[in-house]
Amino acid sequence: MDSPFGIDELKIAVIGGGTGSFTLLSALKEYTTKIAAIVNMADDGGSTGVLRDELGVLPPGDVRQCLVALSDSPKIRDLFNYRFEEGMLEGHSFGNLFLTALEKSTGSFRDAIDTASEVLRVNGAVIPVTYDNVRLKMSWPKGTLTLHGERVIDADHFGYDPRKAKLSLEPAATVNPMAVEAIEQADLVVIAPGDLYTSLGPLLVIDGVGDALRRTKAKVVYVCNLVTKDGQTNGFTVGDHVKEIERFGGGGFLDAVLFNNQIPSERILQRYKAENDYLVEVDMAELAKRPYQSIGGSYLGQIASYNPADTHLPVTRSLIRHNPVAVASTLIDIVRHDQA
Amino acid sequence: MDSPFGIDELKIAVIGGGTGSFTLLSALKEYTTKIAAIVNMADDGGSTGVLRDELGVLPPGDVRQCLVALSDSPKIRDLFNYRFEEGMLEGHSFGNLFLTALEKSTGSFRDAIDTASEVLRVNGAVIPVTYDNVRLKMSWPKGTLTLHGERVIDADHFGYDPRKAKLSLEPAATVNPMAVEAIEQADLVVIAPGDLYTSLGPLLVIDGVGDALRRTKAKVVYVCNLVTKDGQTNGFTVGDHVKEIERFGGGGFLDAVLFNNQIPSERILQRYKAENDYLVEVDMAELAKRPYQSIGGSYLGQIASYNPADTHLPVTRSLIRHNPVAVASTLIDIVRHDQA
Repeated sequence: MDSPFGIDELKIAVIGGGTGSFTLLSALKEYTTKIAAIVNMADDGGSTGVLRDELGVLPPGDVRQCLVALSDSPKIRDLFNYRFEEGMLEGHSFGNLFLTALEKSTGSFRDAIDTASEVLRVNGAVIPVTYDNVRLKMSWPKGTLTLHGERVIDADHFGYDPRKAKLSLEPAATVNPMAVEAIEQADLVVIAPGDLYTSLGPLLVIDGVGDALRRTKAKVVYVCNLVTKDGQTNGFTVGDHVKEIERFGGGGFLDAVLFNNQIPSERILQRYKAENDYLVEVDMAELAKRPYQSIGGSYLGQIASYNPADTHLPVTRSLIRHNPVAVASTLIDIVRHDQA
Repeated sequence: MDSPFGIDELKIAVIGGGTGSFTLLSALKEYTTKIAAIVNMADDGGSTGVLRDELGVLPPGDVRQCLVALSDSPKIRDLFNYRFEEGMLEGHSFGNLFLTALEKSTGSFRDAIDTASEVLRVNGAVIPVTYDNVRLKMSWPKGTLTLHGERVIDADHFGYDPRKAKLSLEPAATVNPMAVEAIEQADLVVIAPGDLYTSLGPLLVIDGVGDALRRTKAKVVYVCNLVTKDGQTNGFTVGDHVKEIERFGGGGFLDAVLFNNQIPSERILQRYKAENDYLVEVDMAELAKRPYQSIGGSYLGQIASYNPADTHLPVTRSLIRHNPVAVASTLIDIVRHDQA
């Protein structure tokens, strides 16, 4: 990593979208400016869904979150996250409108991201995994069940085992070459925590993503979710999560999984239990057999106070969170140790 | 005007709002970066009116036009002028949403303008004439008629002589001290062309504006409208226009009036006649008696082609326009001649 100009900066690619990516990017950017956020483009819920439906634009929501995470301008960051609370703009975050207006006025989502990056003084790059206008589809064998659209899939309590389902995009998406390059050139690729079937899956199933992950010399690390999602991943262990991640991308690309083994208070666990969500169990015996490293640690963050204004998350979601600083520190150690 | 650092730049203040200010600012900024746009704040029509009503913000529309006129960033300028054409955002220009979101997220219209100026790389300053939330009122003596709101007044065919009406703001507005300073420190103050009763009047009647105009050492020049407005200024000569301008601000502040004496084609005049609008007549004999200079010239611009997408102006409004470059050049000559 040494160069005539001093020690090169680490190159990090973060795969995901939404809150999981946001918190990790915020912590990882302390270590490097060479950071790429590769973003899921199948979102069609909330403000993003309305803008897609009404104006035919590509989904701005997850891109906005990643732009804000990498922004160096606190004022504009606040502006981008501002959500209108009244009138015909109710529920829309300003950043979504900004990206939408830019896409409509320039005719290009890519130009929109470039301009927004400039205005937000973004360090690094936010890279949509595809520029195709796609929707998520999840179908079980023999026509038993097919679900269309991320919003629908996200809200569904699957009647069947999701591990038997095929996740795909319609129409089939062409991977953004910049996303492939970012993965190939990185020193570290992080698969951020996030919903398996509506956040990470839609990204990893795209043709070319798994190949890039297998080809890269980077350490590829998956940061496992903290809690299960009722109706979708009930009873999933860490090993079960990783298996699905590998299945989406075609397998054979993971170097390590990072999981939490810290237990929160009984009071909080009870709150989760009331919504039928549970801590993801660590199946060490099973993990020990896998071809990648398993790294456990105390990765729980400060308990976020419950904010009734935050209508976008179930109550419990705001209670158990990753400690992004601790996770980032471990991730950096993995690469540095490897390079030492 | 000489200083140890070379010749000082001209300081120019432009009073108005809307299209008249926009075109003059665009031309005058070629001569100086020390330019202040003092903006009418009584607008309550169109996209601006909806945002005021639904979100309780100050009127963004005219401020946006002035910001765009002084912007040095073509990309962001296009974005600010982009108008949504579908969905719940239909009819809103992005710049209005930008200023509205900023005002809501920072709690201050002043901060909103500062941030927007930064993003747009504005040369000069855009200064709301007041930060009070005010509406325009026009009332004729003895309770014969009172009209409330700029949108209403703008659309009205007055049944009575507007020269007998009192124009005021409710509640009474406190002038922005920055506007007073800009007028006092300027070398040239331009009262831009614009609707007498809904664009210039609402600004000039504010306590403190007329005093500043009388106090300043700047040349104060009014650029007279090209055509009359049916139902409001029918038959108004140049002299009539100036009289109203002086009446609004308390009189005794004008150094010059600049008017057009070029005649457009008969075809265009007929189009105007069909909407009962006529070229403003030049009453030279009357003007010769006035205590200010009268400067006539060929100030007609290129005839703008009729754009059906521009639903915000009557057809005729887009045909006869000032040539902003010629007007700006005369304005600069007035100050330079004075200083020579």
